[in-house]
Amino acid sequence: MKQFVVIGCGRFGASVARTLYGLGLDVLAIDRNEDVIQGMAEFVTHAVQADATEEASIKALGMRNFDVAVITIGSNIQASIMATLIAKELGVKYVVAKAQNEQHAKVLYKIGADRVVFPERDMGVRVAHNLVSSNILDFIELAPDYSIVEVSALEEWEGKNLTELNVRARYGINIMAIKHGTEINISPTATDIVRKEDVLVVIGHNDDIQKIEQKA
Amino acid sequence: MKQFVVIGCGRFGASVARTLYGLGLDVLAIDRNEDVIQGMAEFVTHAVQADATEEASIKALGMRNFDVAVITIGSNIQASIMATLIAKELGVKYVVAKAQNEQHAKVLYKIGADRVVFPERDMGVRVAHNLVSSNILDFIELAPDYSIVEVSALEEWEGKNLTELNVRARYGINIMAIKHGTEINISPTATDIVRKEDVLVVIGHNDDIQKIEQKA
Ligand SMILES: Nc1ncnc2c1ncn2[C@@H]1O[C@H](COP(=O)(O)OP(=O)(O)OP(=O)(O)O)[C@@H](O)[C@H]1O
Ligand SMILES: Nc1ncnc2c1ncn2[C@@H]1O[C@H](COP(=O)(O)OP(=O)(O)OP(=O)(O)O)[C@@H](O)[C@H]1O
Ligand SMILES: [Ca+2]
Ligand SMILES: [Ca+2]
Ligand SMILES: [Ca+2]
Ligand SMILES: [Ca+2]
Repeated sequence: MKQFVVIGCGRFGASVARTLYGLGLDVLAIDRNEDVIQGMAEFVTHAVQADATEEASIKALGMRNFDVAVITIGSNIQASIMATLIAKELGVKYVVAKAQNEQHAKVLYKIGADRVVFPERDMGVRVAHNLVSSNILDFIELAPDYSIVEVSALEEWEGKNLTELNVRARYGINIMAIKHGTEINISPTATDIVRKEDVLVVIGHNDDIQKIEQKA
Repeated sequence: MKQFVVIGCGRFGASVARTLYGLGLDVLAIDRNEDVIQGMAEFVTHAVQADATEEASIKALGMRNFDVAVITIGSNIQASIMATLIAKELGVKYVVAKAQNEQHAKVLYKIGADRVVFPERDMGVRVAHNLVSSNILDFIELAPDYSIVEVSALEEWEGKNLTELNVRARYGINIMAIKHGTEINISPTATDIVRKEDVLVVIGHNDDIQKIEQKA
């Protein structure tokens, strides 16, 4: 089984560590703050107080046995860079690092990070899209011009089946799933009916999705 | 057109504000830090330095004309609560607030927030799922037990068409889209062929998706 180490347990790092552990994986959580480590202890395999910029301390934790390191130190860019460098040098195979901005990301890639993530920026984009139209409940960018969105059924759709709606021809989009309360239908067929307050999961070109947003 | 105000322009807030403005909307960005405001000026309609916990300053900005306020003050929970209360009291119709944790969220809802978001936590869950299996490229929770994932085509799938693959019967999942380089096919049909390095967008029950993750 893959061994994970999460370095920095702020809101993002703690969520990564807890989720990995919840999925049944071995997770070592490191933070330089003792209180943070105490809060993490019951949600990960091991929680250890250490400064990730001190090579000797990190090496002593057996870093080269880890397959994946997730470096989530946020505000202190220098510490994030140091910790990434150390993890790579100590032989961690795959290093994911959180960046503050594009410049920070460039440096992280240069020193060997395998993947750089921007949790706040990415979530900001999603939340903004959700807010623009009240009937768009969730939004996922699939490719630069294509998205998956969760959309509240328009009133004019209620009581109609998918053949009658014919969204493919009318809007250029496809319905992938229909949520009705806590039920979800992931194989909608031509005769399935859209009911009041259903949520449709649709895929399509952003221009076509926008046409639905505007009908809200 | 809806008027948006974004209060707090850290990484999350700045991304929300810039995305809304990019979508063609009117956005007022507020932060108490003058440097932050200078950095925002060219990416929003107006950027104003103000303390969101001072009711008089916020009122003077014409808060009641705004349809949506997004309060993204992070580390200072008390300031986030104060700012939310003030925005509601001044008549903003829809207030979205970022929370640090569940307790913070509860308070925000109690004082009138219409929606509470946890950007770091939600992104942590997503990144953790992506990391667990190397062939899962992206992951979206749709319902508690159902997800949409982007999965690299398994080697055994290459050269086969969708009828031959028959993932619906074999894995219980549905293929919603096929990405081939920069092309995307959002209406895959029975005769479409999966090629090397294609990425499939699939929807299914988490248990069924895990079976594919394990084949990586
Ligand atoms: N040198 C270090 N070694 C170990 N842990 C560190 C180090 N520097 C910072 N950390 C820890 O990393 C965590 C995240 O840092 P910080 O809070 O600055 O980032 P953030 O981006 O605001 O976090 P988030 O948004 O995920 O809550 C904190 O718990 C902090 O104690
Ligand atoms: N009372 C206030 N009035 C206006 N702006 C404020 C106030 N308090 C904090 N802010 C601003 O809110 C922004 C976000 O705050 P902070 O950096 O503490 O949160 P954060 O959750 O770490 O941010 P992020 O993760 O989005 O980068 C900062 O730019 C800060 O200047
Ligand atoms: Ca963190
Ligand atoms: Ca912070
Ligand atoms: Ca912020
Ligand atoms: Ca943050």
